[in-house]
Amino acid sequence: MFRHIVLLTWTEDATAEQKAEVAAQLAKLPGAIPEIRRYEIGVDAGVNQGNHELAVVADFDDVDGYLVYRDHPAHIAVITDYMKPIVATRAALQHQL
Amino acid sequence: MFRHIVLLTWTEDATAEQKAEVAAQLAKLPGAIPEIRRYEIGVDAGVNQGNHELAVVADFDDVDGYLVYRDHPAHIAVITDYMKPIVATRAALQHQL
Repeated sequence: MFRHIVLLTWTEDATAEQKAEVAAQLAKLPGAIPEIRRYEIGVDAGVNQGNHELAVVADFDDVDGYLVYRDHPAHIAVITDYMKPIVATRAALQHQL
Repeated sequence: MFRHIVLLTWTEDATAEQKAEVAAQLAKLPGAIPEIRRYEIGVDAGVNQGNHELAVVADFDDVDGYLVYRDHPAHIAVITDYMKPIVATRAALQHQL
């Protein structure tokens, strides 16, 4: 398996509706990209200070499956239309699982 | 379930041995902290530029299980003795799973 992890923070002027829409749009991607084997989206629970605000952990059979997801038009559209307008910082990593 | 995600980058002068030792010490924690249900450590695969370098995704039954892990002496010792000396940046998030 091959895992992709991304953590995001939002700009100060991002609205609750915009943040929720990013998660809602991401949640559609497993239906559009069959290479996704497992896809978990999470909003920070507020237990600790200084955390990022949205997480995605996505698992694929292999790096090729991840690359299909990374470059898929449905994914790019979510990034361009919903995510980028409100992202402040992004941390990401991919690793063999 | 309750998930904890952390992504780290290392200082420029961190050695390969120091980086490997962090992962090796973290890998012992599931044997020391029974509240850990699933624990995956990953080193960035080098597919994309600008990534973080080490990931931990840890799953617990609930937030209380996570708090046991967060504050466990074995975990704190790894952070203090191996991780903090070479961490440059840290991104983290906890969420319901």
